[in-house]
Amino acid sequence: MNNAVCRLTGCEFPLFAFSHCRDVVVAVSKAGGFGVLGATRFTPEQLEEELAWIDAHIDGAPYGVDVLVPEIVDPRVAEFQDNEQRAAAISEQHRQFTVELLGQYGVDVSPQEVVRYEGRAGITPENGYAQMEVAFRHPIKLIANALGIAPPKMIEEGKKRGVPVAALVGAKEHALRQAAAGVDIIVAQGTEAGGHCGEVSTLVLIPEVVRALKGAGYDIPVLAAGGIMTGAQMAGMMAAGAQGAWTGSVWLATTESETSEAFRDKMVAARSRDTVRSRSRTGKPARQLKTAWHEAWDAPDGPGPLPMPLMGMVSEPAFQRIEKSVVNGNEAARDLVSYFVGQGVGLIDQIRSAKGVVQDFREEFVEAIGELNGMLG
Amino acid sequence: MNNAVCRLTGCEFPLFAFSHCRDVVVAVSKAGGFGVLGATRFTPEQLEEELAWIDAHIDGAPYGVDVLVPEIVDPRVAEFQDNEQRAAAISEQHRQFTVELLGQYGVDVSPQEVVRYEGRAGITPENGYAQMEVAFRHPIKLIANALGIAPPKMIEEGKKRGVPVAALVGAKEHALRQAAAGVDIIVAQGTEAGGHCGEVSTLVLIPEVVRALKGAGYDIPVLAAGGIMTGAQMAGMMAAGAQGAWTGSVWLATTESETSEAFRDKMVAARSRDTVRSRSRTGKPARQLKTAWHEAWDAPDGPGPLPMPLMGMVSEPAFQRIEKSVVNGNEAARDLVSYFVGQGVGLIDQIRSAKGVVQDFREEFVEAIGELNGMLG
Repeated sequence: MNNAVCRLTGCEFPLFAFSHCRDVVVAVSKAGGFGVLGATRFTPEQLEEELAWIDAHIDGAPYGVDVLVPEIVDPRVAEFQDNEQRAAAISEQHRQFTVELLGQYGVDVSPQEVVRYEGRAGITPENGYAQMEVAFRHPIKLIANALGIAPPKMIEEGKKRGVPVAALVGAKEHALRQAAAGVDIIVAQGTEAGGHCGEVSTLVLIPEVVRALKGAGYDIPVLAAGGIMTGAQMAGMMAAGAQGAWTGSVWLATTESETSEAFRDKMVAARSRDTVRSRSRTGKPARQLKTAWHEAWDAPDGPGPLPMPLMGMVSEPAFQRIEKSVVNGNEAARDLVSYFVGQGVGLIDQIRSAKGVVQDFREEFVEAIGELNGMLG
Repeated sequence: MNNAVCRLTGCEFPLFAFSHCRDVVVAVSKAGGFGVLGATRFTPEQLEEELAWIDAHIDGAPYGVDVLVPEIVDPRVAEFQDNEQRAAAISEQHRQFTVELLGQYGVDVSPQEVVRYEGRAGITPENGYAQMEVAFRHPIKLIANALGIAPPKMIEEGKKRGVPVAALVGAKEHALRQAAAGVDIIVAQGTEAGGHCGEVSTLVLIPEVVRALKGAGYDIPVLAAGGIMTGAQMAGMMAAGAQGAWTGSVWLATTESETSEAFRDKMVAARSRDTVRSRSRTGKPARQLKTAWHEAWDAPDGPGPLPMPLMGMVSEPAFQRIEKSVVNGNEAARDLVSYFVGQGVGLIDQIRSAKGVVQDFREEFVEAIGELNGMLG
């Protein structure tokens, strides 16, 4: 396709696939889209391994890496040096609350074991920078950042190496700040998106951001994110001013994805109204499939969410235990199975291959434009 | 344009303009769109007058009427026979809260005067039916209903007179129920919309509803509502499966509209994040420009919203007093000025004529499709 995003990143069809699964990244890029590996949950050593695998399997197709360098660190955790100190700051009340909540669904864990962490994992600036350094050692064609302004280090390194820097934003003002910082691509992500998101819908945010950038004299392409599960929606957001689509949830329902069988079943059954934007998984507002976990943590009489990254030290091991409990035959635990997913989950009705999803997008995209042309007569 | 919605309603360009202002309705229909008069705030006598005026000025162009027949009446108000009984049920606490809140902004009102109502006004089934009867006495080409399933009376009368019935929905399940009830057009309205709205974004809701209707064997066209302020967005939602756009907020920023100067200033200044979905104006969740009114009513230590229609008996006179106070020179009251408006308010940067808005939509629509075609090469 002939537009600025395709020229910048070398992709053929501007469908960007955010995934934590290297197989999805490779399959999408090889099918003409653009795979982006979400690095957050890997240690630098693990990330190195993942990217080496991608390099060996992607046949030279372009791909990217997405890291999180949080711009704002919650003052409640700013003083801590490592995960041991952070874990120690998690109150007895929060531990006990989690133990009791899981216990109600037959998932047993002791207050001592309810908090868990790996040495350097977690969403912190130090980890984001370490992942960035690993990423730049590979032939990436894009580096993306979320949770704040792309740091100067990333922008400098990107310019030096000719790697475009993309930044995720949920509001017009953030797009203008990112543009001033020097990013090359803005990913404008609506409130319907899975994972960290703002409050404005994709349909409104796209023209608002495109207009604001143009008005301020920036010539920066915008990708639309949030709710896009089909090529027809992608065409729609490109009609509204985007130069491509940034997608996440749709790849969770692929054969290659890291999602569990229990979660896949829930995705196929879910309606668009079954998600919630909640702080109860990472500490910042992120959209997920709604369960009793979210209701309990978000309730007025709950203990309140922990700040990032403490919340993840409680939630991630809890969700792992929940999945394991289901596999071991505990049907009650299914109610708690959840993951980051957008409102587009209401459009998931089957599990497809990642390559098949790219092909479907391409066909739906062309068909949608054909139908518009037909209506114009 | 050549599609089912245009054939059903007789409009040339499927841009539906919901407005409480007869001048907007006439201007839009005469410019090739389709004006829909929001009847809710009129008594049957007033509505008769408005529609007679429209008939005399619209030069035979097609137009419609939108009424609200709430399907579910809150059990707290179900027993009351009239507005006098309803008003008497509004607690001292709610009255006092309103008096104090307004007083903080220099808007003085006594607890006796804080509740106000006209004889038969308000959002009740009886008023909805009365408005419907008036509407059917005029040469309307569409009758629309919101807040629940279109009642059998409306559907029967529509079929008898050859007037298509449209129903507003915010969720797939509601669309299926409306289809089963026999409506002719579904208006799928996303959470970003002004006024009463659900939780799912327009971009997700459109394909979800279109797919659900088709899957259940219904051949019913869908209009996209929520966030649409430009012809490019309209083209986008038609790419995603809609057959036209249903719009509201964009007409508030026209020279013909009923909005005050103070509110127009706020619309031009507002960002998309400046709205809130709150029960504090009508009693049901409705999106509005966010002010201290909404923060106070929605606060955990507030008195809680009143049920429909009691909430409106408190809020509508309050907002009228606020506007009046601003006109009389009370600058502090500007902070409270609010009205129903969607997230698209972030895209309002000037006041245009209603005819000009239709022309802009038509040009943007054609241009957006041209750009998509250009990208396809």
